[in-house]
Amino acid sequence: MGIIEKKKIEGILSGYKKLSIATVCSHSALQIFQGARQGKVHSIGICTKDRLEFYKSFPHARPDEFLVVDSLADVPVEELVARDAIVVPHGSFVEYVGEKLDGMAVPVFGNRRSLQFERDRMKMFSWMGKAGLRIPKTMKPEEINGLAIVKFPGAKGGMGYMIVKSEKEYWEKVGKKKALIQEFIVGVRAYPHYFHSIFSEAGYKTAYGHVELMGVDRRVESNAEEIARAVAAGGNVPLSFTVVGNASMVMRESLLPSFMDIGRNVCNSSKELFGGMHGPFCVETIVTEDLDIYAFEISARIVAGTNVLHHPYAEFTHGEMVSTGKRIAQELKEAFRKKKLNEIVY
Amino acid sequence: MGIIEKKKIEGILSGYKKLSIATVCSHSALQIFQGARQGKVHSIGICTKDRLEFYKSFPHARPDEFLVVDSLADVPVEELVARDAIVVPHGSFVEYVGEKLDGMAVPVFGNRRSLQFERDRMKMFSWMGKAGLRIPKTMKPEEINGLAIVKFPGAKGGMGYMIVKSEKEYWEKVGKKKALIQEFIVGVRAYPHYFHSIFSEAGYKTAYGHVELMGVDRRVESNAEEIARAVAAGGNVPLSFTVVGNASMVMRESLLPSFMDIGRNVCNSSKELFGGMHGPFCVETIVTEDLDIYAFEISARIVAGTNVLHHPYAEFTHGEMVSTGKRIAQELKEAFRKKKLNEIVY
Amino acid sequence: MGIIEKKKIEGILSGYKKLSIATVCSHSALQIFQGARQGKVHSIGICTKDRLEFYKSFPHARPDEFLVVDSLADVPVEELVARDAIVVPHGSFVEYVGEKLDGMAVPVFGNRRSLQFERDRMKMFSWMGKAGLRIPKTMKPEEINGLAIVKFPGAKGGMGYMIVKSEKEYWEKVGKKKALIQEFIVGVRAYPHYFHSIFSEAGYKTAYGHVELMGVDRRVESNAEEIARAVAAGGNVPLSFTVVGNASMVMRESLLPSFMDIGRNVCNSSKELFGGMHGPFCVETIVTEDLDIYAFEISARIVAGTNVLHHPYAEFTHGEMVSTGKRIAQELKEAFRKKKLNEIVY
Repeated sequence: MGIIEKKKIEGILSGYKKLSIATVCSHSALQIFQGARQGKVHSIGICTKDRLEFYKSFPHARPDEFLVVDSLADVPVEELVARDAIVVPHGSFVEYVGEKLDGMAVPVFGNRRSLQFERDRMKMFSWMGKAGLRIPKTMKPEEINGLAIVKFPGAKGGMGYMIVKSEKEYWEKVGKKKALIQEFIVGVRAYPHYFHSIFSEAGYKTAYGHVELMGVDRRVESNAEEIARAVAAGGNVPLSFTVVGNASMVMRESLLPSFMDIGRNVCNSSKELFGGMHGPFCVETIVTEDLDIYAFEISARIVAGTNVLHHPYAEFTHGEMVSTGKRIAQELKEAFRKKKLNEIVY
Repeated sequence: MGIIEKKKIEGILSGYKKLSIATVCSHSALQIFQGARQGKVHSIGICTKDRLEFYKSFPHARPDEFLVVDSLADVPVEELVARDAIVVPHGSFVEYVGEKLDGMAVPVFGNRRSLQFERDRMKMFSWMGKAGLRIPKTMKPEEINGLAIVKFPGAKGGMGYMIVKSEKEYWEKVGKKKALIQEFIVGVRAYPHYFHSIFSEAGYKTAYGHVELMGVDRRVESNAEEIARAVAAGGNVPLSFTVVGNASMVMRESLLPSFMDIGRNVCNSSKELFGGMHGPFCVETIVTEDLDIYAFEISARIVAGTNVLHHPYAEFTHGEMVSTGKRIAQELKEAFRKKKLNEIVY
Repeated sequence: MGIIEKKKIEGILSGYKKLSIATVCSHSALQIFQGARQGKVHSIGICTKDRLEFYKSFPHARPDEFLVVDSLADVPVEELVARDAIVVPHGSFVEYVGEKLDGMAVPVFGNRRSLQFERDRMKMFSWMGKAGLRIPKTMKPEEINGLAIVKFPGAKGGMGYMIVKSEKEYWEKVGKKKALIQEFIVGVRAYPHYFHSIFSEAGYKTAYGHVELMGVDRRVESNAEEIARAVAAGGNVPLSFTVVGNASMVMRESLLPSFMDIGRNVCNSSKELFGGMHGPFCVETIVTEDLDIYAFEISARIVAGTNVLHHPYAEFTHGEMVSTGKRIAQELKEAFRKKKLNEIVY
């Protein structure tokens, strides 16, 4: 199934009399609903029965309305359109819905083409290359010489990633499975959260708006985060990288201009490649001891690290503590008011 | 000395004309006093002379009044009752006062029976079992096979815990000392902070009220937190676990329904076992790479991790940044106003 | 070049009709500008051309005015005096300007003598000694016996620090280079942020005012922070300590009185040694498993760890979230209003 025509989405939008914000109940949905509430925008939670109690339990972060589905992969397109809804995609949404997103006849905040690039590693590399990012070397098994990280397609939240030290170890542990092999960069992983706006005059000017820095987080991974304890105790436990949480961090201030450049370059190259991204995105980076910044992935939508909610960088930008969820509601409201939703939705 | 009769406490309460909040000056006392100030409730610090200057030094977190004692174990019961005080127990309070708490003729927020369960490992295991929590395997020395953690009675704040890898190492390092041996689970330790309320309609419904999620922290332990440096440098330093601080963390959103279930199950089983807990509590957990959640302890009162003060989950629940200290004052005020103090105090 | 006479600075100050706050665009400048804006004080950014776009990009943390310079070491003294500016020194300022600071004919917040002590390790040790701080043992190469950390003069932000285990390794890795060798203390590094005020009545009383605790952070270092991953994976990567960021932490409450004592002792000894410090400073500490606090450095000015911006301890002190940047503006405004700038500026 190909990607739905932009005109078709514009047609749907042209029938919208009001604005509502919908997302799948997972990942960063609480924050998105909270932001909609703060912006007084009607919110819709696409939710399975087993999670209903949970998503009802936060009075200030629950959606105004639920659409109950059998599986989070089943986005109820017609019900959403009937409710004048814009869908906000997030990591779990991208994972559950997968390629079905391409053809989905409901407006999506941002640009659904960007999520095609997020899904496909080759497209991702071309995007990062065009943005001029410094990326870890990709290798063939016979090129492994020192620590290498092996990533499998569809491995979500870091689950299943592994480290190998030699070609021999690669064939033993991975075998003929399809996998991406990258140089393992030792450093601090830092995840800057950006927001691209067509209305903002803060942040860095891009080819089609402005990009703001909203915050930075570190991922808390099991067992990587606490493997030192096992190692120090003499245990023999294989390293793994399942993300279980996130923690806030501020960066050495002299690194921030580079982070801003990275954000802008990613926006500008997205414009050239597929017409531009809108709203939240993240560039997954590692900062080495020489203060070099390596990028190893782009998330072309809200990341779970924004769940730390408030960060000094957003306060520097907006003068108050603004979450990415609130920022999403602001941008969509402004676009609705100015009849420009079709510019930031696809 | 047995536990004081509930009726006796009710008798004391019946003489209360106003409400004041008292605690021992340690652990999370600053937060508790700040919360009382925010709620305009009179606060009393039970303090040794050497700490007076410190607890006077924070204008917005100092108690309104001090009761100076020679030892933090000496709770001045009569002076507290004369001041219409409810005592808020915390970790250091439980440690200093110990079993004397049982007979103490002053109202205690929560349920002093719950602290009997916290003190006694066998009772704790029965509670965790009744709550259906997944717990690390408990072992005899001859069953040690891989990493095991050894905990001694009364070891507070993690001090003195050690890791062994074999029965041989156990006998060498521990010998015949009384100790608890548990399977060492490798993962990320996450400490969810809960609050049980008889007035709230947020969070999950329990058998006797609602349980809210206030936040999650990680403990910062010396030397476990930074042992990797020593190991990487080739040093040979034994692992240790003294808690020196706490840091905020947010969890993978799909883990949160399980954390809410855990909180509710602990409340419901507490109701069956000893009439229910009230106010703040914490379940100490470890999240593995497979996203399994192991619980290894319950703290039946405020934990020091809440000293991070503000957390997104409390904001999702209350619409503003509410500390556990403030939440305590809210609940006690509401109970006082509705003449229901006797339901949440024992 | 000797240090400029205090009288000369007082002469400059006597010509000031208003107050403005200037700093070099790096390190913690965003926070300092934000604080000035919050206090409605005119702010001036000393900035190189390549960083202008960045420092213009945060609407609530950009300076009101820029002075563009070719190098951050070129402080435009006359332009600053012409604008009635007080210079706020920070880590990069101290690094870039170095000894030129001594003679600089512009008022500097705090006491420029304190920065002489920060620059010179021997003076630093005498200061720490006078303050009665517990410090790691300093060693000669032949005394190395176990893990030792080697620090080089001018190594900034931890870059270039290394660990050795023996005299032999020392000579191999370091050779005859000038270096400081210290016992490597294993524990949790905690960086308390203090603020000394001549107006405050919060915090601890010192010989010349009060010292408040504003917060505590942990430094996030590359590669030390994540070296465990490489070690667990069997890699062989040398440990390094470049600071790439900071994260917030709260301390075990029973440690805080000692941290307050440390802050006060450092202030009081600074008074005896060089007439006292003013405003923000930090004592770099390590907390061991026995809860001993070792101090290994004093930063006699704002540290980058305050970029976490808001911290419970400042809230306990001030009743709201006050950054060190805002606190600086408050103190300078109060001094300007009371005609006491000359007491806290040199």
